[in-house]
Amino acid sequence: MRFRSLLAAGCVMLMAPAMAFSVTPAVRAPATQPSIEEWGVFDQSFSGPSAGNPFADIELSARFFSATESVTVRGFYDGQSQYRIRFMPGSLGKWSYITQSNCDRLAGLTGSFQCVAATGENHGPVRVAHIHHFAYADGKPFVPIGTTCYSWVQEPDEIEEETLASLRASPFDKVRMCLLPGKKTPLFYPYVRDAQGKFDPARFNPEFFRHLETRIEQLGRQGVEADLILFHPYHKGEMQWFDDLDDAADDRYLRYVVARLGAYRNVWWSLANEYGQVKNKTDADWDHFFQVVESADPYGHSRSIHNSAKIYDSNKPWVTHASIQNGSAVADFGRAVLYRELWPKPVVYDEVCYEGNIDRRWGRLSGREMVERFWLGTIAGTYVGHGETFSNSKGISWTGEGGELMGQSPARLGFLRKILESGPTDGIEPIDETYETHFGGKAGEYYLVYFGTEKPTAWKFSLPRDPPNKNALREGMKFHVDVLDTWNMTITPVDRVFTTGKLAESVFPADGDAMVPLPGTPDMALRIERIK
Amino acid sequence: MRFRSLLAAGCVMLMAPAMAFSVTPAVRAPATQPSIEEWGVFDQSFSGPSAGNPFADIELSARFFSATESVTVRGFYDGQSQYRIRFMPGSLGKWSYITQSNCDRLAGLTGSFQCVAATGENHGPVRVAHIHHFAYADGKPFVPIGTTCYSWVQEPDEIEEETLASLRASPFDKVRMCLLPGKKTPLFYPYVRDAQGKFDPARFNPEFFRHLETRIEQLGRQGVEADLILFHPYHKGEMQWFDDLDDAADDRYLRYVVARLGAYRNVWWSLANEYGQVKNKTDADWDHFFQVVESADPYGHSRSIHNSAKIYDSNKPWVTHASIQNGSAVADFGRAVLYRELWPKPVVYDEVCYEGNIDRRWGRLSGREMVERFWLGTIAGTYVGHGETFSNSKGISWTGEGGELMGQSPARLGFLRKILESGPTDGIEPIDETYETHFGGKAGEYYLVYFGTEKPTAWKFSLPRDPPNKNALREGMKFHVDVLDTWNMTITPVDRVFTTGKLAESVFPADGDAMVPLPGTPDMALRIERIK
Repeated sequence: MRFRSLLAAGCVMLMAPAMAFSVTPAVRAPATQPSIEEWGVFDQSFSGPSAGNPFADIELSARFFSATESVTVRGFYDGQSQYRIRFMPGSLGKWSYITQSNCDRLAGLTGSFQCVAATGENHGPVRVAHIHHFAYADGKPFVPIGTTCYSWVQEPDEIEEETLASLRASPFDKVRMCLLPGKKTPLFYPYVRDAQGKFDPARFNPEFFRHLETRIEQLGRQGVEADLILFHPYHKGEMQWFDDLDDAADDRYLRYVVARLGAYRNVWWSLANEYGQVKNKTDADWDHFFQVVESADPYGHSRSIHNSAKIYDSNKPWVTHASIQNGSAVADFGRAVLYRELWPKPVVYDEVCYEGNIDRRWGRLSGREMVERFWLGTIAGTYVGHGETFSNSKGISWTGEGGELMGQSPARLGFLRKILESGPTDGIEPIDETYETHFGGKAGEYYLVYFGTEKPTAWKFSLPRDPPNKNALREGMKFHVDVLDTWNMTITPVDRVFTTGKLAESVFPADGDAMVPLPGTPDMALRIERIK
Repeated sequence: MRFRSLLAAGCVMLMAPAMAFSVTPAVRAPATQPSIEEWGVFDQSFSGPSAGNPFADIELSARFFSATESVTVRGFYDGQSQYRIRFMPGSLGKWSYITQSNCDRLAGLTGSFQCVAATGENHGPVRVAHIHHFAYADGKPFVPIGTTCYSWVQEPDEIEEETLASLRASPFDKVRMCLLPGKKTPLFYPYVRDAQGKFDPARFNPEFFRHLETRIEQLGRQGVEADLILFHPYHKGEMQWFDDLDDAADDRYLRYVVARLGAYRNVWWSLANEYGQVKNKTDADWDHFFQVVESADPYGHSRSIHNSAKIYDSNKPWVTHASIQNGSAVADFGRAVLYRELWPKPVVYDEVCYEGNIDRRWGRLSGREMVERFWLGTIAGTYVGHGETFSNSKGISWTGEGGELMGQSPARLGFLRKILESGPTDGIEPIDETYETHFGGKAGEYYLVYFGTEKPTAWKFSLPRDPPNKNALREGMKFHVDVLDTWNMTITPVDRVFTTGKLAESVFPADGDAMVPLPGTPDMALRIERIK
C-alpha cells in the first residue's frame, strides 16, 4: 500500500536502509541563506510529491552539522507540494545540512547558512538552571510569571490581537495554551476532512499550524514563552476524536508538532492539561508520549504535564519540571515547599484557581488571594501561574479565550516580577523551610520575608541559618531592609543598617535586638540585602 | 579457599548446582513439631559443621510446602554448630519442608508441622490495606500510633524491661528501633572480634541476635510492631565500621537479618534512619538494599526508608509506604495531604520533632503540639510518629534509650487511638482536601473535623462533598455529632440530630442552618457519624 502510494507520488523510494541519505550530489539544492541568529529559525522549503498522503508516506529529515556539532531534525509536509525543514542553531558559525528521505526527490539536498550572534531580546530557549529554577540559553535568568489562555489561538483575529496586546502590557512571560481546539468552533482545525466530511487523522491542516506558528512567533517577539498543551480533555462533538486516536496517529501528531514547532525557541511542551481526565490514555501512554517528544526534539525544550486528581511522577527522567494544579499548596505557608523537596527540578504551580467572579470555587479568587499565592510560592522556591475568569463584554474570559485582562493581580505580579528580576540570579531558595516558613532568598546575601494576611506593626530583625549552607550567614554581617507593600506596590527603605549578632541556636538576631517598623497592614514583605 | 574450608569443616559440598537439594532420603530429619499457629514461628535447628566460617561458607535454605503453597526461606548459622531455619506459615494445614544446602550434612533434611488457627491477639503481620492504610493479615485494621526508641535494645536488662512496661501502659503499637548499636557501648555487638580484637564483618554474633529476638518477641506479645532500622548514621568509634562495609558484607548482613527475623510477624523493615546521612552509601545502594530485603523476605513485611534532607522516591516499587521525617508537614492544616496525593501508598510521618525540653528545636515540642501533629496527620489520611526527649533521673530519654515515658502526649494519643479504632475500618480519608483542610473521614458515613489552636464557640454544621465520591453524601441524611476534646480526652454527644439540606455548590449545610455548640477552647474536634 505504502510502497504503491510512493510510486504513485513519483518517488523512487530508497529501500535499504529506508532513511539512508543519498550520496549523489543534489543538484536542486536551494540557495544558501545568508545568516540566521543563534536560536533563530532556519526554515527551508523543498518541492516534492503531493500525491498519496505525504503526511504519512514521506519521511524527511535533515542532518545539520557545524564544525563541532551534528543535529538531526525531522521535516514536515506543509501542503501544496511543499516540504519544510526547520532548525534552531545553538552555536555560532557555519552550519550545513543534508536531507534524508524515503523519497529520492527529497533526499540528499544540501545547503548551509551562517549562524550569527543573537540580538535584542533573543536570549535563546529557556532551560532548567540551578536545579529548581530557569534561565535562557545565554544565561539570563528566566523568572516565570505565567498565565493561562487555553484557547486564545482559536479566536477571531481581533481577539487574538487583543490578547497579544494585553500580554504586552502585562507582566506575564509564559502562557499556557492548548494546541488542539476544544469546546468552541475554531477558525482552523488541525486535521482536514475526508470526502465524507470526517476528519482524517492522517492528514494535518497546514493552515491551522501556520496560524499557530504566527502566534507563537509573536509571543516570542514579546518575550513570552508558549507553554503548549499537546493533549487536553475539553473536546466536544466531533473534536472528541482528537484525543481518541490510535497509538500510531498519536505519535504522528506529536512528531508533526515537534517538527513544525520545535525550532521556535519560546516553545515549551506541556504533554496535557488535567492528563488524568484525557479519555483512553493510560499512564504508559503518557510515559510514551514524553519519550516521543523528548526523542523528536533535539533542543530539549521544557517538558511537563499538568494534573487533575492524580499527579504524574515528576521523578521520571523525561520530566524537566513539575507542573502542578493545586491551589491549596500555595494558599498558606509551609505547603509549596513540600513538593519542591521531593524533586530536583523546578516546581511550577501552574494552576492555583483563578482570579474572578464566577460561581465556581476554583474561579473566584480575589486579586489579593492570587497575589498572595504567587508570594507564597515564591518564598518556597517555586513558581506560580495566573488565570482569570472574569467574563468581559464579549462574553469571553482571559483564561478561556484571551482578550482583555480585567483583574487586580497582574499589576501586582508585575511588581513581584521586578523584585525577582532584581534579586539573586540563581533564584529564590527556601531558607530553613522546616522551621521558618516565611523566608526565601539566598543564604547570607538576600532574603524575602512575607507576611501574607498578618498585620505586623514591627518585625524583630532575625535571620535564620540555612541548614545546607550553614556558614553563608555569620555574625557581624550588615544588611539593608526594604519594606515591600506587595499590594500597593511600594518599596520603602528602612533608614538604618542591621548587623547580625550572635547565633542563637539557628537564627542570628540583629545587634541590639533592632526592629523593623511595619505599618500594621496586610500583604507586607521585607527585602533584606547584604551590604558588602 | 572456600572449597577447602568446607572440606575442613567435614562437608561434602554439592557441586552443581550449588543449591540443588539432595534427593537422598534424610535419615537425620528432626522430629515433627505438633502444631504452629498461623503467623507463628516454626523454628528448627540442625547440627552442622563449625569449622571454617559457617556464616560465609555454608548456604542453607528450606522449601516449605503445603497443599497449595511453596515458600523458600534462608536458614542461618546460630553458633556452636547449630543451624536454624525459621518460617512463618501463612495458611492453615500441614506444612512440610526439605532443606537445601551446599553442605551435605544440612541438605535434604525434611520435616513437617501442622499449622493451626491463630489465637488471642495474633492477627498476623501488618500489611498495606485500602491503599493508604494498614491491616493485619486477618483483616483487622492496624492504626499505627508509633513511637521511637532508637537504642532501647542496647540497654541494661532493667531498662529494657522498663521500656517494655512503659510500652504496655502506652497507646503505642509500633516502635522504630535501630538494629545496629550506635553511640554507646552496647551489651552485645552484632559482629564478633577476630584474634586482633577487630570486628570481623564476616562473622555475626548470635548472642546479639538472640537478645534482639527476645525483645522483638516480647514486643509482639504486647501488640507492638517492631519497625527495625537496618542502617543508621549514628555509629561512633569502631562502630562506624558497621555502615562502611563492602557490598558483599552489606548484602550478607541484610540476608542474615532477614533469615533470623523475617519469621516474626511483627517485624517491619526500615532500611535506614536519615539515609542521606549514612556514609559511603549511594542512591543505587539503597535501591539495591531494598531489593535484597524484598527478595529475601517471602512474607512481604513493610518496607520503608527514613530521610534527612533528601526524601527517597516512594514511587519505587519496593517501597510499601513512605516514612517521612518532616515536622512542618504536620504542623498546620493542608500540608500532610500533599505527600499523600503523590503516592498510592500509606504516608507515615515517622519523625515530626519530639515532645521534650532540650535546647534543640527538634526536641522541645509541648505535649499539645505533639498531639496536634497527630490530629493534623490523621485528618489528612496519614499517620504520625511520637518521640520524647525528656531526660529522666538516669540520664536517658525515651527516644534515645527507652525507659520511662514522661510526656503529656501519650495519654492523648491513646484517646486518638480509641477514636480511630472505633472509626471506619478502611481508615480516615481526606475529604475534599484542596478546599476543606479540616476534614477527614469516610464520605457520607463518618467525619472528623479538627480545629487545632482555633477556639470556636460554635460550628455551623456543613459537610463537604468528597470529589472522588460525589454521591456518597446526599440531601436528607441524618448525622449524630460528638464534640471531642482532644486534650482533656472527653467525648460530649450533641443532643440533636443533624440532617443534610440542599447541596450548596460543594457542601451540604444542615437543615435550618443548625449549629454545633463548642466551648471556645482549643484542641477541639468533632466526630460526625451517620445515623442509619
